[in-house]
Amino acid sequence: MTAAVGVLGVGLIGGSIGLCSRRNGARVVGYDCDPPALESALAAGAIDAVADAPELYARADVVVIAMHLEATLRELERLARNPRGQGSALILDVSSVKVPVMTAAAGIGSFVGTHPMAGSERAGVLAARADLFQGAAWAYVPTGRESLDAQACDFIRSCGANALAVDAADHDRIVALTSHVPAILASRYGDLYQGEGDARQLCGPVARELLRIGELNPAMWRPILRANGRNVAPHLRRLARELEAAAETLS
Amino acid sequence: MTAAVGVLGVGLIGGSIGLCSRRNGARVVGYDCDPPALESALAAGAIDAVADAPELYARADVVVIAMHLEATLRELERLARNPRGQGSALILDVSSVKVPVMTAAAGIGSFVGTHPMAGSERAGVLAARADLFQGAAWAYVPTGRESLDAQACDFIRSCGANALAVDAADHDRIVALTSHVPAILASRYGDLYQGEGDARQLCGPVARELLRIGELNPAMWRPILRANGRNVAPHLRRLARELEAAAETLS
Repeated sequence: MTAAVGVLGVGLIGGSIGLCSRRNGARVVGYDCDPPALESALAAGAIDAVADAPELYARADVVVIAMHLEATLRELERLARNPRGQGSALILDVSSVKVPVMTAAAGIGSFVGTHPMAGSERAGVLAARADLFQGAAWAYVPTGRESLDAQACDFIRSCGANALAVDAADHDRIVALTSHVPAILASRYGDLYQGEGDARQLCGPVARELLRIGELNPAMWRPILRANGRNVAPHLRRLARELEAAAETLS
Repeated sequence: MTAAVGVLGVGLIGGSIGLCSRRNGARVVGYDCDPPALESALAAGAIDAVADAPELYARADVVVIAMHLEATLRELERLARNPRGQGSALILDVSSVKVPVMTAAAGIGSFVGTHPMAGSERAGVLAARADLFQGAAWAYVPTGRESLDAQACDFIRSCGANALAVDAADHDRIVALTSHVPAILASRYGDLYQGEGDARQLCGPVARELLRIGELNPAMWRPILRANGRNVAPHLRRLARELEAAAETLS
């Protein structure tokens, strides 16, 4: 069992990891660049205490970097430049792309890149749930160091998720299709729908799901999509061609 | 209460109407051009007995035409040519487009065009459920004849659904966006996904929903999409342009 967990970034994912770790009996310390988010996390019981980053690495057995992609990359670059600053903690990230993360984390000996396949259309710690990861897949990029990988898998399983080993490039190629393209479809569909007025009652299940996910946070998604553009763009081009051809057939 | 219901076409929708009407105490007679479907409907308890179309119109208080679009249009044209052949039954259809249906049904005095907003990725009477329409919207095109519209609404409510009055042209314009475009997106997304191999574990919720609906029946959908092409094609063209632009930004 993990005695102390540090969470950098107490949003939906960091907050859910906090709730879940506290339920497992761990002490959770948190940090966030947004002070009201920390207050909400304390009030919601997602963290026991606030600590700044150096203290957090020094005191925790596992540190989860659960910030947006750009902040995660900056934090990993900072750690890679100061290899002694991270104590002996196992360090995980939870970003939606893995190749840029693994590049930024090169040289951090205790880092494992991961990606829990769970979320919500709602952001922030108020949407966090202790059971958010229950039964979900949680991908990790094997480091080739058995004991480090085993520690990461133990932590993933302690959150109720199924650990899934995936190479970083494979991960990014697959999620381009399974997550990033659908997110773009949902966002564009949402724009289209805005023009229709009150059509909600005549929505089928796909429309409802697209509209639910279409309310995504552009500030969070833009860097993810840009970081995975090489994998995402060809799918979008193929879909664009096919939709144009379908339109041609129908008109 | 409706004493006798006739169902022309005992698939998912017709079968569910049968199950639901029988649960409400009505006697249900069914017809289908596919004899094994009739046997399955009898075995599943979706109909009490089999009758051919003339007998069905003569014996039922309400006849629901629940066949694919092209067969529905043929049946309505046949009825419109023989105004005495339909007895005194209230006649409803359940097709996904309403303008072509209302055109074909012109002159049938007891017809109300309807569209239940419920379904399943599974087709056929074996997927039918008595509660398929429970709480769902069920659109109908008002005829302007109060007692006829009230009869149609009573039947819709007896199936557990909420009757929703919509003009035929408005209906087709709205469902182009809320149902037909999502169906095409799901189908194209499914094709894209085929190339990826075993990616199911890394699917987000939109991908799962697109894949579920993407397994739709082309024989059923093609005529619907073609009949509503005028409304569907402009949306597809706009999406195609936006996906191409998104690809440009990302690459």
